[in-house]
Amino acid sequence: MMGKRREDRLGLGDVRILQDEQVFKFTIDPILAADFLRALPPEKVLDLGTGGGVIPLWLAGYREFENVTGLELQPEVAGMAKESVALNGLQDKIQILTGDLRQPSESLSKLGSFRWIISNPPYLPAQSKLSGNQVLDRAKFELTCTLDEVVAAAKRLSAGNGRLVLVHLPERLPDLFAAFRRHGFEPKLMRMVHSSPGKPPNRVLLEGSKAGRAHLKILPPLFIHDENGEFSEEMMEIYRGRRE
Amino acid sequence: MMGKRREDRLGLGDVRILQDEQVFKFTIDPILAADFLRALPPEKVLDLGTGGGVIPLWLAGYREFENVTGLELQPEVAGMAKESVALNGLQDKIQILTGDLRQPSESLSKLGSFRWIISNPPYLPAQSKLSGNQVLDRAKFELTCTLDEVVAAAKRLSAGNGRLVLVHLPERLPDLFAAFRRHGFEPKLMRMVHSSPGKPPNRVLLEGSKAGRAHLKILPPLFIHDENGEFSEEMMEIYRGRRE
Repeated sequence: MMGKRREDRLGLGDVRILQDEQVFKFTIDPILAADFLRALPPEKVLDLGTGGGVIPLWLAGYREFENVTGLELQPEVAGMAKESVALNGLQDKIQILTGDLRQPSESLSKLGSFRWIISNPPYLPAQSKLSGNQVLDRAKFELTCTLDEVVAAAKRLSAGNGRLVLVHLPERLPDLFAAFRRHGFEPKLMRMVHSSPGKPPNRVLLEGSKAGRAHLKILPPLFIHDENGEFSEEMMEIYRGRRE
Repeated sequence: MMGKRREDRLGLGDVRILQDEQVFKFTIDPILAADFLRALPPEKVLDLGTGGGVIPLWLAGYREFENVTGLELQPEVAGMAKESVALNGLQDKIQILTGDLRQPSESLSKLGSFRWIISNPPYLPAQSKLSGNQVLDRAKFELTCTLDEVVAAAKRLSAGNGRLVLVHLPERLPDLFAAFRRHGFEPKLMRMVHSSPGKPPNRVLLEGSKAGRAHLKILPPLFIHDENGEFSEEMMEIYRGRRE
């Protein structure tokens, strides 16, 4: 299922990541989610479905978080994430756990409840056309967890004032809001991500909170590229691992 | 409650509208909603809470609709809308009815069910700070109808394949989606409206449908002004009463 590994640079700083050439060429999406997270160190963060570990590596490597936990279902993927953590000498700041977010493990409940939970979950309903590569399909399609199951897990694992941050598809926005509210997270902050100005959004960043009244703040759109097809200034700041 | 009247131009074409200087200086919002409506003549359209009649005047005066109904609760406001209709010679194409959308009248049910329903409803919860002018407050605050009641009325008055178009505040988006789904309208098309590029959106345009699967299409943002503070090219097209 897994193929040849290679070591790549993550963003424009020093963080390195191991990737599987057939499976985990990481996308921009977990980077956008990690940048969007309003938490600040020393708060601890849980990443549900961490995959190759992009979000923990980003938060610990660039944003100075010192207590990040990544939960991953697939043992071989979690193993690669662990190796990336070691490669960057971040073992003291990141722990990668293998487990199923639908069935919280003893080791996870021992960590206590998290104020901040983040996830780049599978986007597409399971009935979509699969690639046939199980590792890849489980990351892209709702085969091992649905949107609702991710939000339900966040509810269980978060503190009373817990916040959940997701990156997802704009076309699923009504489902996102419904799942958030169903599990007690009020949508509080949203940002649409567009490949370039004049294009429809292709990703949405959303933060929900267990506390607080209904009032969604929407940020100006994030454009990945400018009119000339170059990365936008803001995207360059993100790639450089900005901290605020 | 009502003050001095004056006659104004609606948009950049020939349509005129009567306005009350103390109450109904119309906003851009019903114009944005009328432009966003994907219906085409000869379909008939119902405008819930038509106020001074901007939406019916726009649809009949610029977009060639021939059968538009406007429902308005406040008799003096409905009366002014009727006078505006007559002023433009659009009596054959627009009917203004006085009535409460929460209690569908016999005259309204006689019109049959509508494929397209549109509304620029009050945006703010009733507990917000009122101006003291009842006519104005009823247009701005959820005093005589809540968002949920508007969508419930749309459900009753629409056909099996009915569609509902609203303009509203982005901060209410989770409430909008929840009300739409509660009454059987799946959010299908959305557009954020920004006063200028780089600003957060201040209005949202939303279309829901009684038929069809969950899949929200989001259009590129609409910017009212450009970087120089002038009306954007698209806003000028809208003001000219574009037809597609």
